[in-house]
Parts: sequence; C-alpha cells; structure tokens
Amino acid sequence: MTSPAKFRKDKEIIAEYETQVKEVRAQLLEQLKCLDQQCELRVQLLQDLQDFFRKKAEIEMDYSRNLEKLAERFLAKTRSTKDHQFKKDQNVLSPVNCWNLLLSQVKRESRDHATLSDLYLNNIIPRFVQVSEDSGRLFKKSKEVGLQLQEDLMKVLNELYTVMKTYHIYNMDSINAESKLKEAEKQEEKQISRSVRQEEKQTPRSPDALTNIKIEEKHIRRSSVKKIEKMKEKRQAKYTENKLKAIKARNEYLLALEATNCCVFKYYIHDLSDLIDCCDLGYHASLNRALRTYLSAEFNLAQSKHEGLEMIENAAENLNANSDKQCLMVTYNTVFCPPARFDFQSHMGDTVAHICAQPPVQGELLQRCQQLQSRLSTLKIENEEVKKTMEATLQTIQDIVTIEDFDVSDCFQYSNSMESVKSTVSETFMSKPSIAKRRANQQETEQFYFTVWFFHPQSTTVLLG
Amino acid sequence: MTSPAKFRKDKEIIAEYETQVKEVRAQLLEQLKCLDQQCELRVQLLQDLQDFFRKKAEIEMDYSRNLEKLAERFLAKTRSTKDHQFKKDQNVLSPVNCWNLLLSQVKRESRDHATLSDLYLNNIIPRFVQVSEDSGRLFKKSKEVGLQLQEDLMKVLNELYTVMKTYHIYNMDSINAESKLKEAEKQEEKQISRSVRQEEKQTPRSPDALTNIKIEEKHIRRSSVKKIEKMKEKRQAKYTENKLKAIKARNEYLLALEATNCCVFKYYIHDLSDLIDCCDLGYHASLNRALRTYLSAEFNLAQSKHEGLEMIENAAENLNANSDKQCLMVTYNTVFCPPARFDFQSHMGDTVAHICAQPPVQGELLQRCQQLQSRLSTLKIENEEVKKTMEATLQTIQDIVTIEDFDVSDCFQYSNSMESVKSTVSETFMSKPSIAKRRANQQETEQFYFTVWFFHPQSTTVLLG
Repeated sequence: MTSPAKFRKDKEIIAEYETQVKEVRAQLLEQLKCLDQQCELRVQLLQDLQDFFRKKAEIEMDYSRNLEKLAERFLAKTRSTKDHQFKKDQNVLSPVNCWNLLLSQVKRESRDHATLSDLYLNNIIPRFVQVSEDSGRLFKKSKEVGLQLQEDLMKVLNELYTVMKTYHIYNMDSINAESKLKEAEKQEEKQISRSVRQEEKQTPRSPDALTNIKIEEKHIRRSSVKKIEKMKEKRQAKYTENKLKAIKARNEYLLALEATNCCVFKYYIHDLSDLIDCCDLGYHASLNRALRTYLSAEFNLAQSKHEGLEMIENAAENLNANSDKQCLMVTYNTVFCPPARFDFQSHMGDTVAHICAQPPVQGELLQRCQQLQSRLSTLKIENEEVKKTMEATLQTIQDIVTIEDFDVSDCFQYSNSMESVKSTVSETFMSKPSIAKRRANQQETEQFYFTVWFFHPQSTTVLLG
Repeated sequence: MTSPAKFRKDKEIIAEYETQVKEVRAQLLEQLKCLDQQCELRVQLLQDLQDFFRKKAEIEMDYSRNLEKLAERFLAKTRSTKDHQFKKDQNVLSPVNCWNLLLSQVKRESRDHATLSDLYLNNIIPRFVQVSEDSGRLFKKSKEVGLQLQEDLMKVLNELYTVMKTYHIYNMDSINAESKLKEAEKQEEKQISRSVRQEEKQTPRSPDALTNIKIEEKHIRRSSVKKIEKMKEKRQAKYTENKLKAIKARNEYLLALEATNCCVFKYYIHDLSDLIDCCDLGYHASLNRALRTYLSAEFNLAQSKHEGLEMIENAAENLNANSDKQCLMVTYNTVFCPPARFDFQSHMGDTVAHICAQPPVQGELLQRCQQLQSRLSTLKIENEEVKKTMEATLQTIQDIVTIEDFDVSDCFQYSNSMESVKSTVSETFMSKPSIAKRRANQQETEQFYFTVWFFHPQSTTVLLG
C-alpha cells in the first residue's frame, strides 16, 4: 500500500475546486463587462456617425447655398438684359454657350449638394438612430439571457461541489468501516491463535484434573470467539453498506463531472458565441445599408456632376471660330452684306457699254494691258510667297494656342499619407518659365503676321495704280 | 434718236452714286462698331469667367476648410485615446474600419477641393487673364488693319467718282463738238444750195454786164464756202479729238468700275472674314484649353472621390459579424477561453475513476439510464422544433435587416427645368409607413426569438435534473 502522504487531503481538493469556481465566476463577470464595453463603444460609434453626418449635412447645405448664390449672381445679370433678341443672338455663340453651361453646372451642383444634405438628415441619420436603438435593445436582452445562462452554469458548478463533498464523506465512511472491519478480523485471528497455543500447553498434564479446567476454558474461549465473530459480522455489514454508498456517491460525482464539463463546454463554445451573435443581430447589415445609402447618394451626386461636366466638355469641343463668325455675319447681315454691284451708267444715251479697243486707243490699251499683266505676274509670285509665310505664321500661332497643357492629374496624386497634406499645386500657371517663353513667342509671331498683312500690296488695287 | 427725257441727267447719276458711297461708308462704320461690341462682350465674358472662378475658388476653399475641421474633430478624439493597444484592437473591427475610412474620405475630399481652389486661382484664372489680354491686343491690331482696308476701299470709290465725272465731261464735250460739227455741216449745205439757186437766176441777164457781178459774187461765195469748210474742218478735228477723249474716259470708267467691284467684293467677302478671323485668332483654342483645365481638375477630383468611395464600399461589403466576433474573442481571449476541464479527484487513494455498474448498483443505473434516454429523445425532438423555429425567426430578422432599401437615385432625377429646383426628398426615411411597419415587425420577431431562447430547456442540464 502507498503511504497516506501521497493522497491529497480533502480540504486541499475542496479549496482547489472553490478557487476554480471563483475564477470561473470572475471570468463570467468579465464577459458581461466586455459585452457592456462593446455596447458602449457601439453606442458611441453610432453617436459619432450621427454627429458626423449632421455636421456634414450643414457643410453640404452651406456649400449648396454658396453655389446657388454664385450662379444667381451671374444669371441675374443675364436676366437683367432687357434686349431678348440680343440675348438670343449671343447665346448662339459657342463661348457664351460654354458660359451658360458653366452656370447651369453650378446650379446643378448646388441642387445635388442640397439633396445630399437632405439625405444625410432625413435618411442616413435616422438609420443610425435606428441601429443605435436596436443595438441597445438587443444588448439589454442578450445580457438578460447571458445572466440566466451564467446562473445556470453556476448552479451546475455548485451541484458538482455538493456531489464531490458527498463522495468524500461516503468514501471516508467506507474507509472507516473497512478499517474497523479489519480490526475485528485481526482480533478474531488473535483469539483463534491464542486458543490453539493453550491447548498445546495443557497436553502433558493428568487427564482428569485437567479435563474440568479445559472444558471451562474452552467455554470461555468459545464465547469470546463468538463475540468477536458477531462484531466482525456487524462490521462487515456496516462496511458493505458504506462501500455501496461510497460507490454510488462516486458514480454520482463522475456523472456530475461529465455533465458539468458538458455545460461548461456548451456555455463557452456555443452560448457565448450565440450571445455575441444576438448582440450583433442585424447590426452589421443595418450599418451596411446606412453606408450604402450614403454611397448611393454620393455616387449619384458624382454621376450627376459627371453628366453636367460632359455637357461642358461637349460645348468646349464645339468652340468654333468659323461657325461663330458665320453666326455673327448672319445675325448682323445688314452690316456685313456687300453693297449692290456698281453698274455702268451710260451718259446722255451713250450706247456703248464696253471697252472700246478700236485702232485709235488699241495700241495704248494693249501696251497698258501688257504692263498690267507683267506687274500682276510679279505680284502673283510675291503674293504666293506672302501667302505661304502667313499660313506658316498662322500655323505657328495655332500650334502655340492649341498646345495640350490642360491635364492637371498630377495635382491630384498625393503620397499615401493622409495626414500631412499641403497642396503643392500653388506654383502659378503663369509663373512657369516654359509658359512665359511660349507667350513671348506667340506675341512675336502675331506681330509678324500683322506686319506682313498690313504692308503687303493688294493686287486688286493695282488695277487702279 | 430717243428723246432727251429718256436720258438720266448727270446730276441724278452723280447724286445716286454719292448716296451709294455714303451708305457704304456708314456700313463700314457699323462694321467697326459691331467688332467693337463683340470685343466688349468678349472682355466682359472673360471678366465674368475670372470673377466666377475667383468666387468659386473661395467657395471651394471654404468647403475644404469645413471638411478638414469636421475630420479633425473626430480624428482628434481618436488620437486622444491614450491606450494604443485598445485603439489597435478596435481598428480591426469592421464597423470601426468603415468609420475610419469615412473620416479619411472627408480628409481626401477636403484636400481635393483645396487643390481645386488652388487650380482655379493659379491656373484657370491666369488663363482667362491671358485670353483677355490676347483678345484686346488682337482686336486693336485687327481694327487698325480694318481701318486701313476701309480707307483703301473709300479711295477706290472716290477714284471711281472722279473717273465717272471725267467720262461725263468728256462725253459732254464730245456731244457738243459733234453738234457743232453738225451745225457747220448744215451751214455748208445751206451755202452750197444758195449758190446754185443764184447762178440759175442770173442766166437770163446780158452776159457782159453780168459777168463782172458774177465774178464778184462768185468770189464772195467762194470765200464764204471756204470759210465754212474751214470751220467744218476745225469742228471735225475738235469732234474727233473730243470723241477720242470721251472713249478713253469711258474706257477708264469701265476699267475703274471693274476694279471697284473687285475691291468691294474682296473687302466684303475676304477682308471682313479675315478681320474677324484675326480678332478670333487663338481665342477659341485658348478658351478651350482653359475650360479643359477646369474639366481636368473636376474629373480628377471626381476620380479621387470615386476611389475613396470604393474603399468605403469595399469596407461596407466586409462588414462581418462573424469575423468581428472572432476578433473580439481573440483580443479578449483570457475573458472568453473556457476553463480547464474538471477532472476526477480521487478521494484518499480511491483507485476507481470510472462509473461502477456491477450488480449492486447495476439495476438502479440501468433504470436511470433508460429514464434519461427517454427524456433525452423527447428533448431532442423538442429541440429540433425549437431550432427550426429559431432559425426561421432569425431568417425573418435577417430578411428584414438586409432589405435593399438604400438606392437613392430617384432623389437625383430632376425635371429638366434648371430654374425651379426645390428638393423633394425631404420626406424622412423613418416617416414612410412601410418602414414603420417593417420596424414593428422586426422588433416583434426579435422579441419572439428571445422568448424562445430564454425559455426552452437546455438538454445539458437534464443530466443534472
């Protein structure tokens, strides 16, 4: 048999279990605290979201009003122009069309940002309010369920405690009964061995004298043995009874142990997870819908803006000097239409209405014609040169004024850091040396163009020279 | 010969021409006035564009600052949280991730609108300033050229006037010379016929007496005829000379007429068009570039906004209750990890650690086992029912909270009228009867779910019953 020092004492086992249960209880409390904290954070987040969208709604409304004012300022100016015909005439010009579309775009953006503000206030914020209400309610109910589940779990642990202690008591009783039985068995053994030794000692004596003593002694010994046997029997019964009780108590303990472990497993693995699920019920989905409402609003705003910008893009592509010139000439046709042809007015019935090239003037006319022809052919060559120069000059100017220098994508490329943002665009468009050089070149070319135009001889006037 | 009443008088023709020239001169003046007006309108439009973008830059900067303040207000709150570990823990939760991205988006929009404002001020406005300068300069130069061209044209018209008058004078001289010549011819005829008649009358007279008279008379007659002939010759020469002059003058007139008509045609058809082209030189192209800079800025802003929104969209799609639950449980694993399994603690060296089912307890245990088994099978059926009910209830709630009610495209559909815009969104999201009904349904279902959960028996506790 092993020494008793190797067995843990009852008290030790009980104290260890009590500590274990205390730890579980503390953990359960922590769990509820943790859920409370999550609930608080959620309420705070939803409050922040509401505050955020309320403030942003104000900003959007402000922006919308400013844009509205801006558009109205210029539209009022156009409206105040009393001359409707003049207004109509101007509107056909491509730059005026662009300008009108710019103002329309501002009106459109104003309206869209007002709609955005409205959606924040009357759709998105109410959603967060709703989510907050739902979350609070669900947390409260989940906590109630959680408390009930924890109570049930603690009941189970306490049951185990009781059952374990019962096992200890019954097992101790069984051990005690066993040791008492063993003591009785020892006494019986002792008595039996003593009787045997005395009978062996009495053998050499006279038979008659000893017979009486022997009988007497035998009688005493027998009654003693019987007594011991009776005690042993009683103790045997007691032991059997206690042993059975101890076995039953151990069985109960083992069953309770199994059930407790199952309950603990179920609580930690299923119930806690279910509890968190219940707290979250609909939270993510509702949050998702609120955010998607925000996204839908923003994407629609972007879409609307894009459509407006495309109209301006289209108008900018249709900026056309030639068609504007035609429009101008049609609009002011009385100012630009050529006068009637100057006809020959015959004098006093002069019936000849053509050049006479008969002999008296023939020679002179022929000579003059030849001179003019030679002058014209020189001029023609000169004009071809001038024309080429002017066309080349014009092309240079066209190249300068149509240079594709309008892509500002770079200004919207930032480093990934969202914190330290200070726009680096500020270099003025005009301050770039390349642009200054280009402008100087443009003006010089333009000056040259006008000089050529101004001073080159007009072939039509040569006839009158 | 036609009657003189049929010829238009010189004065009439001259007056008509003068009126024609006067009209042309007035029209030329109108043309310059018209160009001046176009120039003024252009300058005004470019001024309006500058004012517009200056004001819009202010509005954008204002908007940017307000967005920045908004983001900072909430970011400061996050930053003030001293517990970095806690902050880090929170950031892994999907709703917190969405919230952080929302704030980033506001920062991004703030930065982009500041960039937009900057581009307005330092790129787009300088372009309009440039276009305005160029336009003014080109108008001035074109007007100079135009004045020169008009002066040339007037010179031509005046030349024609002179040449026409010369033709009139010379033609008149020619007509006069002709009539004088005709008069001389008539006189000569008369003289000749008179001589013939006198010679016939003198035939009956005596020859001698008459001879002297005859000779004398003959002499006189002859000298008279000679005189007339001489005069006629002189007049003939005069007439021939004047006739030639008249023909030459008419030729000059006809040539000048042709040249003038050519000049007029050239001026009205080519020069005026060239003049307007010169006024427009680069105007449309530069305006186009300025507008395309604006468009590039706006499209890039929209692009940047879109990218940010897509990040939020992605985060909203990743809103996930399950992964958040896992995160929470991992983060607070000491709070959520199950306790160690409760093991059998043997009492005082009790070597049996399993349930004894030998004869004395066998019957009882078997009976108990049968009872438990029958109770469990009943519970199992009940639980299956409860599980189905709960799953169906949960599905109902899921269906309610995942309803796709977030599309707000309708709010951005307007009638085409850009004037009368008053957003019609204002009906609160919550005020819709369908939503109120849905919410009531959601809460009822939720209540039912909790009731079922709260009251249905837990099979694990049955073992301890």
